[in-house]
Amino acid sequence: MEQYVIGVDFGTLSGRAVLVSPQGGGIIAQCVLDYPHGVLEGPAPGWALHVPEDYLAVLENTVPSLLRNAGVSPGQVAAIAWDATSCTMLPAMADGTPLASLPDYRDVPHAYIKLWKHLTAADEARYIQETASRYCPELLEDYGGTVSAQWMLPKILQILREAPEVYRRSELFLEVTDWLTLALTGSLSRSRCCAGFKNFYRTTQGYPPAAFLKQLDPRLENLVSEKLRGPVTAPWETAGRLSPRWARRLGLRPRIPVAAGIIDAHAGLLGSGVTEAGQVLLAMGTSTCQMLFSRERRVIPGIFGMARDSVLPGLYAYEAGQACVGDLLDWFVRTALPAHVTEAAKGTDIHAFLCREAAELSPGSGGLLALDWWNGQRSPYGDDRLSGLMLGMTIHTTPAQQYRALMESTAYGTRLILDAFQAGGVPIREVFACGGISRKNPLMLQIYADVLNRPIHIARQEQTTALGAAVLAASAAGLFPSPAEAVRAMTQPAETVYRPDAARAAAYDSIYREYRTLAEYFARENPVMHRLRGQ
Amino acid sequence: MEQYVIGVDFGTLSGRAVLVSPQGGGIIAQCVLDYPHGVLEGPAPGWALHVPEDYLAVLENTVPSLLRNAGVSPGQVAAIAWDATSCTMLPAMADGTPLASLPDYRDVPHAYIKLWKHLTAADEARYIQETASRYCPELLEDYGGTVSAQWMLPKILQILREAPEVYRRSELFLEVTDWLTLALTGSLSRSRCCAGFKNFYRTTQGYPPAAFLKQLDPRLENLVSEKLRGPVTAPWETAGRLSPRWARRLGLRPRIPVAAGIIDAHAGLLGSGVTEAGQVLLAMGTSTCQMLFSRERRVIPGIFGMARDSVLPGLYAYEAGQACVGDLLDWFVRTALPAHVTEAAKGTDIHAFLCREAAELSPGSGGLLALDWWNGQRSPYGDDRLSGLMLGMTIHTTPAQQYRALMESTAYGTRLILDAFQAGGVPIREVFACGGISRKNPLMLQIYADVLNRPIHIARQEQTTALGAAVLAASAAGLFPSPAEAVRAMTQPAETVYRPDAARAAAYDSIYREYRTLAEYFARENPVMHRLRGQ
Repeated sequence: MEQYVIGVDFGTLSGRAVLVSPQGGGIIAQCVLDYPHGVLEGPAPGWALHVPEDYLAVLENTVPSLLRNAGVSPGQVAAIAWDATSCTMLPAMADGTPLASLPDYRDVPHAYIKLWKHLTAADEARYIQETASRYCPELLEDYGGTVSAQWMLPKILQILREAPEVYRRSELFLEVTDWLTLALTGSLSRSRCCAGFKNFYRTTQGYPPAAFLKQLDPRLENLVSEKLRGPVTAPWETAGRLSPRWARRLGLRPRIPVAAGIIDAHAGLLGSGVTEAGQVLLAMGTSTCQMLFSRERRVIPGIFGMARDSVLPGLYAYEAGQACVGDLLDWFVRTALPAHVTEAAKGTDIHAFLCREAAELSPGSGGLLALDWWNGQRSPYGDDRLSGLMLGMTIHTTPAQQYRALMESTAYGTRLILDAFQAGGVPIREVFACGGISRKNPLMLQIYADVLNRPIHIARQEQTTALGAAVLAASAAGLFPSPAEAVRAMTQPAETVYRPDAARAAAYDSIYREYRTLAEYFARENPVMHRLRGQ
Repeated sequence: MEQYVIGVDFGTLSGRAVLVSPQGGGIIAQCVLDYPHGVLEGPAPGWALHVPEDYLAVLENTVPSLLRNAGVSPGQVAAIAWDATSCTMLPAMADGTPLASLPDYRDVPHAYIKLWKHLTAADEARYIQETASRYCPELLEDYGGTVSAQWMLPKILQILREAPEVYRRSELFLEVTDWLTLALTGSLSRSRCCAGFKNFYRTTQGYPPAAFLKQLDPRLENLVSEKLRGPVTAPWETAGRLSPRWARRLGLRPRIPVAAGIIDAHAGLLGSGVTEAGQVLLAMGTSTCQMLFSRERRVIPGIFGMARDSVLPGLYAYEAGQACVGDLLDWFVRTALPAHVTEAAKGTDIHAFLCREAAELSPGSGGLLALDWWNGQRSPYGDDRLSGLMLGMTIHTTPAQQYRALMESTAYGTRLILDAFQAGGVPIREVFACGGISRKNPLMLQIYADVLNRPIHIARQEQTTALGAAVLAASAAGLFPSPAEAVRAMTQPAETVYRPDAARAAAYDSIYREYRTLAEYFARENPVMHRLRGQ
């Protein structure tokens, strides 16, 4: 009787479950459910909340469908695992009951799940960064020197400051990944990937010391021992076993292994077949996440995070990011595209239309150069107050030239990040790409290959994230000798490879040097972008 | 019997004649004719030619109409004068016959009138500039240190190099203004305004020395004595008297005075009522020309030119320019305005629509800042290879914000020029504006008033250029004790004044400092714009 595993990917707007045949059979069935409540806006701009029950609804609706659609019996499913956005967190009771589910807290926004993109803990993030710089600078070494408002500790501090009663009543603060583990298995366990990348859990030192937390706020002194309890577990290890009650609700066998789970972007590494030091994955969508493996721990400025044993055993995973990629092209189409172009493109996808025109142009788009900072700068400068720039315009500049220059600028931004890794002693040997853009925009990928002057391998499988979660399930079930073996068995080699053209690569090399000079000037030497934001 | 004068303004696309009552009666009648042949494109991109007969056609068609329409008899017209674009030049025989009118030269492009915007003498301009910098640097002092491809000497050198036979055969090289004087009066005379601003004729030294011209090319050694002959005459003085033949053709009295004439932009000074040291006029159209009077000779970097007694007696006139003003807003509307805005504006003027939205914004347009160099940089850097820039964009940036930022950038560009004058010892007391934008775009003028932190006076009369020519005719006819008296009698005080708002002026002061820093950086420190043009 053939065995299967299930991976579930909890995204921002929906959850997707896949049924996978671990022996090279790929994805057998998949099922998606939009979160019934969507993203709640909360009491002020910048808030972004989820309702806990929506996650459970995804599981209850998608998992039974998978089995039904594929004609697979409960006994054939060996294990389940999930990934989720991160840090997407909630306050809960010791048994896993979300505070938001208690009658007293139904109307309290701070009791709900705060999404990764909940932005209003920015003051707290800045305060933690300043305090750490002064009293505990080594804490920031693994995080590029900065603290993001997206992370766990700023979100906890915001709750403490704005809703001390919620803080007091909370018995646990949990990543949504870990909350699901507790809810479905009764076991308290924390994914090392989430803890490492989003909550200052470092390979050798563990969580931040109580003295530092006390320095932040005396009430935080015992945060770790009281409210961040629980063993930290590698993503591919069994964090618990499916409770009989949940086995019934999902139509699965009781007590199958539930892996500890992983951050969604990192699951993409596994689903894309990336297993070795020196391999980097570009997850290209509205923004881009760069993830790579290394055998060494290196301090790299401006990265989002670095953690050992957080994705595959024995390897450090590094994460960096660009805040505006697909978003930038969408802004251009929405805001800066003249009617005659929209008219000419009628009936075809506007991005595809612009790409056809842009493909006729040479590197450099007729003398244009942009800094791709329309959403601020993530890596390597970690500065949200930087902004976009374009130069080189003349009265003959066309929309297609500008569109290509924007694509090129995101490629330069990627190269800046990869160069920072290499300069910091983390070598890069191979580049992979996944995500919507990698499949829909061949011109953009060719530009990336030319700018990076490296081949770019596109993952064969579309659902790399959910497939990555399934790899963890297979590992927890002990179907393979190691997680890396699971990846190799369950993914297929890239089917499309974009190869650099020597002449274009040489042209881009010169323009990239201009990009780097301008980036340094505006990020380090002339704070005009900061000052103008103050106007 | 009331007396009248006629002013004719020869523009790039058409000629306009006005009949003016000198005793405060203003413009009585006007008549426009498009040049029958328009602008000819010549043998290569960048060429811009006129047909000499078109200028005569303007006179023959418009002047008789004026008298007919106003019911004025030939005996009532005291004098005539004209202005023209400059340097708009042609090769001619000693009697004024254009080379282009000789049967042998009908098909020779170099025999035709070269318009001011004929651009293909750029190599010659650069060569003259380099040679002058080395052997005769004082020659460039009155011209901001640079030589423009628009001027007379580069155009002559281009003829010599590319069509030596045309050079040899030419008995005179003439500004179109001076050619018309010769053609209509039989007198050879050269307007001091054209000679001073466009042909290196300096107040004290005259034309460039033969040794320098020989250095440029041995064949140019006797250029001045052979082909630039003729007295240099102040614009308001009588250069000749209307020949009986032309009096018949125009329906005027024979032997009325013909004034020496003037460059079109400078005529605008007179037509706008500007007569005093410290007054500056912004002639705002597709590009902007800044002209001002001073009692002193000062060396100002990056200006277009400076000449004494070239517009009004006893005063130095200075000219500087911005290459892209109305052109910039037109580029934006043509190239970067999304369909939903075009749609919303349907039925109204698009610029007026955008101005209504932009008027709701604060100084700084939401953190945007542009360098207005879409046509290169004219003053103060004199660098055609600089290009446009915009920074501060986010994914929330709107078209109206960008449009306002572009308007603001041209205002900063104007302030940069006025600051250069003041820093060079040429004080500025009052600002006037004329030209299409000054009458059609109140928001833009208010932004200028706020950025310059000075009131801006808008000329009451719309046809300031042709009116300025009429002022010269009245002066040549001796109707007033001085040209300045003629201006005061024939123009009226500004009817609209834009006054700065203190709060906005303070905000703009900070942003202007950022503009100046960026302008210095891109013009002097980082030649990225040059290098990208080479791609």
